[in-house]
Amino acid sequence: MTAERLRQQVEFIIEIDRLKSVLRRTYLANGERLENSAEHSWQVAVMALVLAEHANEPVDPLQVARMLLLHDIVEVDAGDTFCYDEVGALDKAEREGKAAQRIFGLLPPEQAAGLRAIWEEFETGPSPEAKLARALDRLMPLLHNYETQGRAWQEHGITSEQVIAHNAHIADGSEALWQFASALIGNAVAKGFLAD
Amino acid sequence: MTAERLRQQVEFIIEIDRLKSVLRRTYLANGERLENSAEHSWQVAVMALVLAEHANEPVDPLQVARMLLLHDIVEVDAGDTFCYDEVGALDKAEREGKAAQRIFGLLPPEQAAGLRAIWEEFETGPSPEAKLARALDRLMPLLHNYETQGRAWQEHGITSEQVIAHNAHIADGSEALWQFASALIGNAVAKGFLAD
Repeated sequence: MTAERLRQQVEFIIEIDRLKSVLRRTYLANGERLENSAEHSWQVAVMALVLAEHANEPVDPLQVARMLLLHDIVEVDAGDTFCYDEVGALDKAEREGKAAQRIFGLLPPEQAAGLRAIWEEFETGPSPEAKLARALDRLMPLLHNYETQGRAWQEHGITSEQVIAHNAHIADGSEALWQFASALIGNAVAKGFLAD
Repeated sequence: MTAERLRQQVEFIIEIDRLKSVLRRTYLANGERLENSAEHSWQVAVMALVLAEHANEPVDPLQVARMLLLHDIVEVDAGDTFCYDEVGALDKAEREGKAAQRIFGLLPPEQAAGLRAIWEEFETGPSPEAKLARALDRLMPLLHNYETQGRAWQEHGITSEQVIAHNAHIADGSEALWQFASALIGNAVAKGFLAD
């Protein structure tokens, strides 16, 4: 019984190794290469531990970190959908739902249901933790774009209007972080990193 | 006040981006390339959420995951020390202590002290959470080595005697996981992945 559970759990751990090969559109802060979704998940989970105090409502930082550890696992099957890709957005929910079914489904049933529920909470949940997790997931690539002088924005022809429209939702999780992000976007435009 | 705190916190988040460029000795499960310490930290933190039930004593999975999110941040300055590198081991504690001072020190003082204490707990703490975290950090590369038919073991001339001596400490955190690991090592020898 324990042996079979453990076999399933280890199979899941090995399966998610593939997230390390899913590339995002953002570059490392040093510009060396595109970042992958596994290392992004790590960084944004650490970010939750550090920035949780700025949430609009009190949150448990560890619950936010847990959501962010799991939030991109579906990309193992569904790939990373660029946040400004309107076509990819159309079937994103369907592709990711199927992926969640298969990948979390490698685990023992009650554990699969538990982790899947945490992922769904990240996607659409109303809790202060979910709102902050979604805010941090938007803020992180803003920082990377700023650090690389707008490289990914420029490569994809993204304008400040698009960046503001997408990132204004940061305020749902944290007014303070949106204020910070908003100033960063303004600086990016002023420095020519981002097209007005 | 908030603006200055946030500036320090964001500086820390950007600084730890460098962990994505610190290479470990283990390969991705698909053998594509060496893995880096950032993506490893993500995977082993997820592992904590999944395998916490196998700890010798009851643990809070989220505390284990938090330790593992932070456990390798010192490598931004100190680099990854291969676990079978006896020379590197000599000054590892000193190098990593200095790194912790500088990197966590980018944060506001009370937050720096808090995260550093969690890192120290991972390194040497006696709690069931710390013991399990250290066990998982050993188990993870075993899985990667097995998946890649012993590639890193062979490249570094590692023998089963060394692997057993290093990994027997898994039992301090989880007898069940050590039993699993022990069988895996036996299989690796039987299949010729690991020199006897």
